[in-house]
Amino acid sequence: MNVTMAAIEAARKTIAGQVMRTPMLPAPPLSAITGAEVYVKYENLQVTNSFKERGALVKLVSLSDSEKARGVIAMSAGNHAQAVALHASRLGVPATIVMPETTPFVKVAATRSHGARVVLDGETLSDAQARAEAIQSAEGLTWVHPYDDPHVMAGQGTIACEMLEDVPDLDMIVIPIGGGGLIGGNAVAAKTLRPGIEIVGVEAALYPSMWNAIHGGSRPVGGPTLAEGIAVKIVGKSTLPVVREHVRDIVLVGESELERAVNLYLTRQKTIAEGAGAAGLAALIAEPERFRGRKVGLILCGGNIDPRILASIMMRELERDDRIVSFRLTIPDRPGVLGLVATLLGRMGANILEVEHRRMFLDTPAKGTKLDITIETRDREHLREIFAALEAEGLPATRIEAGDADVL
Amino acid sequence: MNVTMAAIEAARKTIAGQVMRTPMLPAPPLSAITGAEVYVKYENLQVTNSFKERGALVKLVSLSDSEKARGVIAMSAGNHAQAVALHASRLGVPATIVMPETTPFVKVAATRSHGARVVLDGETLSDAQARAEAIQSAEGLTWVHPYDDPHVMAGQGTIACEMLEDVPDLDMIVIPIGGGGLIGGNAVAAKTLRPGIEIVGVEAALYPSMWNAIHGGSRPVGGPTLAEGIAVKIVGKSTLPVVREHVRDIVLVGESELERAVNLYLTRQKTIAEGAGAAGLAALIAEPERFRGRKVGLILCGGNIDPRILASIMMRELERDDRIVSFRLTIPDRPGVLGLVATLLGRMGANILEVEHRRMFLDTPAKGTKLDITIETRDREHLREIFAALEAEGLPATRIEAGDADVL
Repeated sequence: MNVTMAAIEAARKTIAGQVMRTPMLPAPPLSAITGAEVYVKYENLQVTNSFKERGALVKLVSLSDSEKARGVIAMSAGNHAQAVALHASRLGVPATIVMPETTPFVKVAATRSHGARVVLDGETLSDAQARAEAIQSAEGLTWVHPYDDPHVMAGQGTIACEMLEDVPDLDMIVIPIGGGGLIGGNAVAAKTLRPGIEIVGVEAALYPSMWNAIHGGSRPVGGPTLAEGIAVKIVGKSTLPVVREHVRDIVLVGESELERAVNLYLTRQKTIAEGAGAAGLAALIAEPERFRGRKVGLILCGGNIDPRILASIMMRELERDDRIVSFRLTIPDRPGVLGLVATLLGRMGANILEVEHRRMFLDTPAKGTKLDITIETRDREHLREIFAALEAEGLPATRIEAGDADVL
Repeated sequence: MNVTMAAIEAARKTIAGQVMRTPMLPAPPLSAITGAEVYVKYENLQVTNSFKERGALVKLVSLSDSEKARGVIAMSAGNHAQAVALHASRLGVPATIVMPETTPFVKVAATRSHGARVVLDGETLSDAQARAEAIQSAEGLTWVHPYDDPHVMAGQGTIACEMLEDVPDLDMIVIPIGGGGLIGGNAVAAKTLRPGIEIVGVEAALYPSMWNAIHGGSRPVGGPTLAEGIAVKIVGKSTLPVVREHVRDIVLVGESELERAVNLYLTRQKTIAEGAGAAGLAALIAEPERFRGRKVGLILCGGNIDPRILASIMMRELERDDRIVSFRLTIPDRPGVLGLVATLLGRMGANILEVEHRRMFLDTPAKGTKLDITIETRDREHLREIFAALEAEGLPATRIEAGDADVL
């Protein structure tokens, strides 16, 4: 039942030419930031933008002809859905994907576009799961589990083979953990090919399911995370023993580290990582001393992030860097003052993004007005110059800080 | 004086191991959208996130020992600055980079971090150019031109060699044109290696300098473009004849096509292109029939785009897809109506992003209030359901359209 190196080697032959052999490249900007020698495996360049295609294809190919003819079923609102849909369609296997009713249309449309029958049912993933199980038994379909399956694990394990083929002397590979399929397959492959290598797992601190299972811990599990791709409550039966045997340690990363990692991939490495895809980099940010000076391979395992969340992360980072700043002025309520302020800001090279002129606050003097302004600055020093110039005009600015918890 | 294949072959040896041999990969999502068979050369993965390192390094290596000892100078607020700074520093050649005073701090800091002396002077690029020429002659420095130099062109031409090594049967390569260094070197390389290949140039429609030079045209040149990396007014003396000889045609792309291309790279291909970097894809969007069914190589030549502009492009695209929608309701000014509206929106699964409650418009009835609401929807159909539900409550919504011209 366990995943073996022979199965992973067979999986490599199965996927050759059918799944992209993604690039594994040095990432000097990330190395400079983290102090490790960072290499990135770009699984976000797969057709469906995640590694899930590997395991899905290996599972599909493993089916008997009659199983293929009856078709397969999966329950997923995420990367697994698209991976199964795409490769089932390529192999001519009918695929049914069950998703909760609230799944964003873009994900439904993407999955349909790969040729799958999509059934929308249930408010939550567990409602959808119940419906999927009902369809599966009624129609005699074969279940394609996202991680708890040796074929799927063997498929995922092909990633480490490619990484070590390209960079044979890696000291460590850092691997995100949801149910454990990705780390299970890759730990077996990497430890076989290079026994001295260290495998470090990463979980979102809100979902420490594997950490609990390994350490007999009882950390709470749940809550909204940027890394919804690894927000799994129950680890796989077949993945747990592999992790226990091969994984050196599991790093738990917080939401701010995940957010920073997504932003670093975007702004410094010019590539899109979803929260789960950036978890490895988040681990380097969370515990730099563990990785410093070592040759570290990261699996950028997926790039499917909502554009609105990505935009929000970018804007928040600009706010943290004082490149976008909101502040309040209390000004006398007479003609010309807004003109004065706007002219001064223009002269200083501050780009005005938003202005709100408020007269109705109770804490404003009867003859005063509150002016809330959002500007774009060149940098922190530029902001200091702007605030000093306002102060010199008798208009001291009060900073309005952005909330830190509104991205999700 | 002209760039030759021998020089390009020598340049390949010069840069081997010093500049990343970037991936050249099929891009099925972009193929599905454009109807061409698209391959992307990811030059945005270079350390300084653009192809400019190739030409800069080849030029630097070509210098005599005494030239190297005296040092080099370049004028650039963009990718060329960082490329010269990085490779001069690696070779131990002192580098001076002159930038306008208004250059964003992040670009100044990035250039300094690569070890260059940065001189900030002048309001505009031409002021900075004058200052750079003064320093160059006073200090006896060697000029590193961003494009009008056969060494630089030879360096850039290494890209097409790598592309054709990886995908030998390309039908076309689409290449952005600023001064012409990128297309000059690569046209020579590609036409030598594969004489039947078609080289198509791309310019921003606001900067048709090469188009004018080739066609004897007099289209106006200037204005704010998303593709500032190719916003060049004067083409190179050494690049023009190469383009005349080898380039089949030049496609001019508008700002909306550039914006759409940046967004497609981001949302569908999960990679960051600056405006100039996305120009090739913009050409496929602008003139799909020219490329349909053909094997087309795109050079994603740079990824240095301002995060605020990128966020803005992403949000505007969500607005175009009706996933973020602003509308106005005129409601009776009595307690409870906002609660009614908010409850209805919540029940419909519309995520409220912004609410503005306005009593002071002159066109509002004395007993009425205007409510401006921005919501996030699942998709266009979801929006129709929401508007129908509001209408059924006697609250017809008036759509507030986003401006299309505010991104720059």
